[in-house]
Amino acid sequence: MTYPLHSVSGHLVAIGGAEDRTSDLAILKQVFALAPADSHEVAVIATASGIPDEVLPDYEAAFSRLGASRVHSLDIRDRQEAADADTVRLIEQSGVIFFTGGDQLRLTNVLGGSPTLKAIRSRLKGGAVVAGTSAGAAAMPGTMIYNGAAADALRKGAVNMTFGLGLVEGLIIDSHFLERGRFTRLMEVGASNPEHLGVGLGEDAGVIIHPHGILEAIGPGHVIIIDSRDLASSNIAELAMGEPVAVENMILHAMVSGHGFDVEARRYLVADELSAILAEKR
Amino acid sequence: MTYPLHSVSGHLVAIGGAEDRTSDLAILKQVFALAPADSHEVAVIATASGIPDEVLPDYEAAFSRLGASRVHSLDIRDRQEAADADTVRLIEQSGVIFFTGGDQLRLTNVLGGSPTLKAIRSRLKGGAVVAGTSAGAAAMPGTMIYNGAAADALRKGAVNMTFGLGLVEGLIIDSHFLERGRFTRLMEVGASNPEHLGVGLGEDAGVIIHPHGILEAIGPGHVIIIDSRDLASSNIAELAMGEPVAVENMILHAMVSGHGFDVEARRYLVADELSAILAEKR
Repeated sequence: MTYPLHSVSGHLVAIGGAEDRTSDLAILKQVFALAPADSHEVAVIATASGIPDEVLPDYEAAFSRLGASRVHSLDIRDRQEAADADTVRLIEQSGVIFFTGGDQLRLTNVLGGSPTLKAIRSRLKGGAVVAGTSAGAAAMPGTMIYNGAAADALRKGAVNMTFGLGLVEGLIIDSHFLERGRFTRLMEVGASNPEHLGVGLGEDAGVIIHPHGILEAIGPGHVIIIDSRDLASSNIAELAMGEPVAVENMILHAMVSGHGFDVEARRYLVADELSAILAEKR
Repeated sequence: MTYPLHSVSGHLVAIGGAEDRTSDLAILKQVFALAPADSHEVAVIATASGIPDEVLPDYEAAFSRLGASRVHSLDIRDRQEAADADTVRLIEQSGVIFFTGGDQLRLTNVLGGSPTLKAIRSRLKGGAVVAGTSAGAAAMPGTMIYNGAAADALRKGAVNMTFGLGLVEGLIIDSHFLERGRFTRLMEVGASNPEHLGVGLGEDAGVIIHPHGILEAIGPGHVIIIDSRDLASSNIAELAMGEPVAVENMILHAMVSGHGFDVEARRYLVADELSAILAEKR
């Protein structure tokens, strides 16, 4: 019944930003637990960040505490570095690949089409876990949001989109979702094309994207789902840029840790249902 | 088919705040146009406001420009003033009664059970239009939100509610809705009791509540509808205070000016459908 969101055996973990990095590490612990048996090395990619020197040591400390055999801090700044053979080799030997937050456009601009990104895709296919927070989460799908009006983004053209890293299809991911009131961003995207599921990640919340198309919410925050597939009508195609978009019938869910969502069936899974499905797929 | 939201012949107009008061007055013009033929006097009630001396002259100027025969600026500060016979008389002769923004708890605390509020209800029943912006809109229903967490209000107890002015039933109204990212507030209310329709008013947007249960969006902004009646599940009853609330299946609409919603039938009305229904009811 379910189709693969990505044709891989590894897991993706998208995190909404501001995950705990110093206390009980709830989300990072779940990321690390998904590492394949053959590698407990972690590669942290700070390309999105404007302050890599502040961010990288935090993750290095956190993953070391969690039991990483090595943590590779990769501050890939430009396309030349993204083509570097040593960087590619470190990715190839890592079981956990982690994208920090920052600016998702920097991430795609530097990594798009690079040997490093190819190595990451190959590792995901091979069973590694690829995780990202904030910009690192938003950039995961084939298409991403990289900018949008802060207040009312439900106006034609208020959301800027471009190609993402292409690690998952069928979804659009937004981060800091509740904290920055970003519901209207995913509503505009859903009106523009109702096929793709909107996933709004709250801070200190994340979603494990299982290979067989099941989402699993983790962390103390919320994961909001905006499902536009049954959109009944919208005026978006008739509007001039900047005009307010009308939307009839989107479906809204709020998942908490342990709840899930079947992307293909468009079905919410309470804790018991999620456990049963994950056990069956195992 | 539709039931009266309030057993009256007048109109209610709920406005999301920050409506234009100095330029083309789009929303205030529509409020004034609903005045009954027998009175073009306007009573502006600034009880909610902490700065009545700044707010009242703006509305006085705006309604005068629109053709009001008189504008009564009523700065009702306490329960004694709310019982004042002169105030009641001015309400009784007004065709338009307008609540400014401010703090909705001040509004209910001062006006609740007062002769002034009784006179307002009676005028609404008799055909007057009662309008309110921001706090003045939020306070209209039988139950209102008066406080809520700014970021993630989808946590048990994060929204504070109490009795409102009781001018309309079956709805809960929130204002500044898109601009302050308040989706989670109406989601928490919907999880606590799915019966009542959530109406989230954007700034410079409003909704005309027609007596026969039809909502009509007006103004350049958005009116968001959160319909929880088909809520499939929520953990809210099992949680401790402050824990994150899960929500399965709420329905989301975004109305723009000229679109409507049939509250009883829970049906979105595009412009043609709304016009046809309003013509039929007339």
